Amino acid sequence: MSEAKLIGLDWGTTSCRAYLIGTNGAVLARSTNGPGILGVENGAFGAALDGMIGGWLVQHGALPIILSGMIGSRQGWAEAPYVCCPANADDIVKALARIAHADLRIALVPGLSTENGAMPDVMRGEETQIFGALGSSDDGRFLLPGTHSKWVEVAGGRIVSFRTFMTGEVFGALKNHTILGRLMRAGEPDAAAFTRGVCEGAAAGSAGALLNRVFATRTYGLMDRLADTALSDYLSGLLVGAEIAEAAGGDVTIVGSATLAAHYRQALRLLGYTSTLAPEDCVATGHWRLARAAGLC
Amino acid sequence: MSEAKLIGLDWGTTSCRAYLIGTNGAVLARSTNGPGILGVENGAFGAALDGMIGGWLVQHGALPIILSGMIGSRQGWAEAPYVCCPANADDIVKALARIAHADLRIALVPGLSTENGAMPDVMRGEETQIFGALGSSDDGRFLLPGTHSKWVEVAGGRIVSFRTFMTGEVFGALKNHTILGRLMRAGEPDAAAFTRGVCEGAAAGSAGALLNRVFATRTYGLMDRLADTALSDYLSGLLVGAEIAEAAGGDVTIVGSATLAAHYRQALRLLGYTSTLAPEDCVATGHWRLARAAGLC
Repeated sequence: MSEAKLIGLDWGTTSCRAYLIGTNGAVLARSTNGPGILGVENGAFGAALDGMIGGWLVQHGALPIILSGMIGSRQGWAEAPYVCCPANADDIVKALARIAHADLRIALVPGLSTENGAMPDVMRGEETQIFGALGSSDDGRFLLPGTHSKWVEVAGGRIVSFRTFMTGEVFGALKNHTILGRLMRAGEPDAAAFTRGVCEGAAAGSAGALLNRVFATRTYGLMDRLADTALSDYLSGLLVGAEIAEAAGGDVTIVGSATLAAHYRQALRLLGYTSTLAPEDCVATGHWRLARAAGLC
Repeated sequence: MSEAKLIGLDWGTTSCRAYLIGTNGAVLARSTNGPGILGVENGAFGAALDGMIGGWLVQHGALPIILSGMIGSRQGWAEAPYVCCPANADDIVKALARIAHADLRIALVPGLSTENGAMPDVMRGEETQIFGALGSSDDGRFLLPGTHSKWVEVAGGRIVSFRTFMTGEVFGALKNHTILGRLMRAGEPDAAAFTRGVCEGAAAGSAGALLNRVFATRTYGLMDRLADTALSDYLSGLLVGAEIAEAAGGDVTIVGSATLAAHYRQALRLLGYTSTLAPEDCVATGHWRLARAAGLC
């Protein structure tokens, strides 16, 4: 077992994953059930940090610590202002924010901002995952699916641009807070309904057509064209298909949980795109690379 | 004052409007605050009806009664199965459902169904508004904006086809149940933000682009490009603009409340379409026409 060099935390809104990291970013230990920033009361982030990694500090001494994700937002521990794209690891390192807590050296990774046409977009945490997922390559297209899916272009080691799609959150809002959920019943995953959704979502046409097409989730149920247990998968496919048809443009590397990645890989395949899966702990590799570039370890 | 001939009720999910109707559909009296079908417990629709129109029956005797809207759905008083488009007033009249309640003759207007490609669509209640709004014309394009906007084509006195857009309900779900509502603050209506939304929604492009573009509601707020009091109007405009760009195709008659109609008229004008406003009580005219065609009065 290699020597511990760094502690990295991917600290988001609703959860936190902590890594004890050795040489070359090897993950020596992990703790995946930490509280998200919404779960930390009265700004007690220091105590929350001690709770998650105190044991490692006792065992390995005062290792350098690097935090990425929403912990660096206005609602987090301290704000690390956005760095504009295009940005490489050095640009990010120059903008690391620092926190003093006990005798620990803590660095906060800034988020990135970009402009698509006149529309601003932002990320926090995904940049670290991407620098971890890049591997030995300097170029690539990345998809980080989820509540807010991010599609990210990397060229020459720089994150050049990205776009956010609210696919996961829109799905939840439509399922749980509109008439579309009324006919739905929980059941086994229905791959055929998901496939149908993907194809119809990809073919939906205009932005307004989506406001019409989602209503099929109700009328397919009313007219018995889909079983009540299939409607949720249909709606999920519809939104994922629409997202991919707009965002995809060639081979893509997916960074995300196995279950969600499998859904997206299936949808990508249906629409003619190849994809590969990034290693599960790539965010720790990102922590390592950024910390090394900053001379923290 | 002409003699009372008919009582018509536009009985929807969340509210009911009742009309005392004279010759040629003249509205002699109205009651607009009746309970929607969700507000009637244990199927006590007869009692709810008596509560709304009992006074008129005492005054004018046992007038014929016609009901339109969700009252004729599976969740309503009795089911009046959908009639397929294209459908004229005679087709609808042939499918009227009948209810016996006390000594009253009650007719239930069926809803309409259609197919757009392989997607079924349905309406209940709007068909009656449209037959009322048609006036002396046999042709027209109608927009009934709201929770579920309907765009309807009428030719030769038949409702030929229609499409539902979940614009209003999607707006509510996004505003109240996603991150997009977090930065919003209530304020005076912001016409400039609504206009900006309409133009950007109409230009959004694909179905998937809408999943990206709605996120501008957050990033415009984060980056101080729009005031927190403007974000709700921006999001509303975005969805309305997307709907109109997909659905509009020439002059349209709007059937709906004055406030909502004004918003849509502004958006239509911005995107180069003319519109006219149907009379407020056109549903009563529709009740009259259908009841006459059925020989009820």
